Amino acid sequence: MRTQVLIVGSGPSGLLLGQLLAGIGIDNVILERVDRDHLLSRVRAGVLEQGTVEILDEAGAGARMHAEGLPHDGFAVAFDNRLHRIDLHALTGKRVMAYGQTEMTLDLVEKREQAGLTTVFEAANVALHDISGKPFVTYEKDGQSHRIDCDFIAGCDGYHGVSRKSVPEGALQSFERVYPFGWLGVLAEVPPASHELIYANHERGFALCSMRSMTRSRYYIQCPIDEKAENWSDDRFWDELRRRLPEASAAAVTTGPSFEKSIAPLRSFVAEPMQFGKLSLVGDAVHIVPPTGAKGLNLAAGDVRYLFSGLREFYADGSMAGMDAYSGRALARVWKAVRFSWWMTTMLHRFPEGGAFGQRIQEAELDYLVHSRAASTALAENYVGLPY
Amino acid sequence: MRTQVLIVGSGPSGLLLGQLLAGIGIDNVILERVDRDHLLSRVRAGVLEQGTVEILDEAGAGARMHAEGLPHDGFAVAFDNRLHRIDLHALTGKRVMAYGQTEMTLDLVEKREQAGLTTVFEAANVALHDISGKPFVTYEKDGQSHRIDCDFIAGCDGYHGVSRKSVPEGALQSFERVYPFGWLGVLAEVPPASHELIYANHERGFALCSMRSMTRSRYYIQCPIDEKAENWSDDRFWDELRRRLPEASAAAVTTGPSFEKSIAPLRSFVAEPMQFGKLSLVGDAVHIVPPTGAKGLNLAAGDVRYLFSGLREFYADGSMAGMDAYSGRALARVWKAVRFSWWMTTMLHRFPEGGAFGQRIQEAELDYLVHSRAASTALAENYVGLPY
Repeated sequence: MRTQVLIVGSGPSGLLLGQLLAGIGIDNVILERVDRDHLLSRVRAGVLEQGTVEILDEAGAGARMHAEGLPHDGFAVAFDNRLHRIDLHALTGKRVMAYGQTEMTLDLVEKREQAGLTTVFEAANVALHDISGKPFVTYEKDGQSHRIDCDFIAGCDGYHGVSRKSVPEGALQSFERVYPFGWLGVLAEVPPASHELIYANHERGFALCSMRSMTRSRYYIQCPIDEKAENWSDDRFWDELRRRLPEASAAAVTTGPSFEKSIAPLRSFVAEPMQFGKLSLVGDAVHIVPPTGAKGLNLAAGDVRYLFSGLREFYADGSMAGMDAYSGRALARVWKAVRFSWWMTTMLHRFPEGGAFGQRIQEAELDYLVHSRAASTALAENYVGLPY
Repeated sequence: MRTQVLIVGSGPSGLLLGQLLAGIGIDNVILERVDRDHLLSRVRAGVLEQGTVEILDEAGAGARMHAEGLPHDGFAVAFDNRLHRIDLHALTGKRVMAYGQTEMTLDLVEKREQAGLTTVFEAANVALHDISGKPFVTYEKDGQSHRIDCDFIAGCDGYHGVSRKSVPEGALQSFERVYPFGWLGVLAEVPPASHELIYANHERGFALCSMRSMTRSRYYIQCPIDEKAENWSDDRFWDELRRRLPEASAAAVTTGPSFEKSIAPLRSFVAEPMQFGKLSLVGDAVHIVPPTGAKGLNLAAGDVRYLFSGLREFYADGSMAGMDAYSGRALARVWKAVRFSWWMTTMLHRFPEGGAFGQRIQEAELDYLVHSRAASTALAENYVGLPY
């Protein structure tokens, strides 16, 4: 088999790239390690920048998001038992959209199926070959070996995927910061405490009030890195969450049985460059950000935008200029979002090594942030997404 | 002897407070540990916020500063071999004044002498008594013991002074951050590399180009905390300085023999509250900031402003409201400047523990900072001084 662009991984970035390419007649195949149900059961964040909304529209997969997603004009920062609203729309003229990544993935999968495009689910032992020359990919499915030749490979298979690992040793430089805590997250079929997100700094640790819809809430609390989710009954979780919120917000939390409870570590990771030969790395395959600031999915969508632009240029007029520029263009934006996520994480979480000085610095920074229009604008312009 | 306000320490904050009080007829005496020549030989920073310029004018000691000081409309940030100007005046409508602290101290000392106000130099073994009740201060001079009774004591005697140490154990809470490096500074009778300051981030370490006048330059480079100034010949200093600057700036450095060369550690320190009974602590006696961002002297001037306001209110109508509010009002502003100095220091210096990730985060932050108007404005409004 042969295709123009072989996409490894059918998460949102692979699916988005596939739709955009198909839209301008560029043939592509997606290989996905897990099955369709598994893919659509992954719980992920869901705050979309305006640029991500636009590219989803461009891919023709934005209809349900516009119907069911929740546009947010702002969010709140809580500290010292007070709540301060950051008015994103007033400060930047833009807003964000709360829409679960799981839903976005479903929309893209259905769109791809309607268009009759090829996705190979449960592709085992995917291997990338001759990525500096005439690339091809091999995999196994139902006990059979397969080979697909292609012009380009897009590695959209996440941090643990095969794509980044296929780059020769020494060709990538890695940058990493591991944070000394995790997030304990809960999903529950209850209305959210607020119609906008609340990011809370508290001496007991960070807390986040988020939602998937007006009837499904997503809450997180900072926890030790070695904590176990099974140590947390629903009651214990709700009590701890409310302790970290301003009183009025705590009173607005509707509790109920959780149907998902898990702990995620927090990490910043970037590998450079983002391409090697005919292989371009996209999203989590090449950079990870902590979830504070909701940049992960949006950063992946930004990568897709740059890569799509390079591929379109190549197939339109044979120029490799856009492809050659991919890593540089993407990284310039990636590092700004990595910086922003690191900063939000640093400002909002309790750091064991920061001590009393660190806590006061956080409070001084938050106090300055919410009272200075310039500082609020800087926060807001990063949150809604810096220009491409 | 008796006075209304006993001021311990005749640095700029003590002198400034004394002039302001005398200006409205409040009697005050200053006790100073060292002699007059020693006092006026201290080399210190000299970038004054507009608010500091104004209060110096209010004290009647601003004439020479206006004649000889250098108004700066901006400064430059250097990284990645490029120079980016932060236009303070365009961003905030304000500017700063380069004027040596030594000169300011001299102006205030002369003003005090002209007014015939009492300063006791070489006051030894200063001790504060009954600071919660009817305060008095004892000291020795020329082998004689002396006692001065007073209504209030202003502790303007710096970090190592007796004032803060006179507060009972446990009544103050301290917050501290010691940075893992120092500044090696040089004074030379040469024209500065630029008419404005240059703050340089470089992988070899931070560098700062500053000046006392258009014929006297002040340069600093980050150095290990245990470095010795005697290990640095002038040639070695100039070579290292130029290595850390963008090429064009390095070429503009005029070298020459240094007449002062010393290493200063970098530290953030705050003690709370800033008053105890009738003792109010001012400036370095109660908070220290690293010199990055030039906030130390300005913060002291801010404390003086709040304390003067409280004393004026007390002597005008007998109300203690302003005095009781001193610590809270001053600390709110102090912590913002401590935050700003910490942030500037963190962003511009090489941190051994930050590694490659830390360096990239710094570059991403600097790149964002100089290209975002909101972020540049936030930097500028802190640099020129947040509102009182």
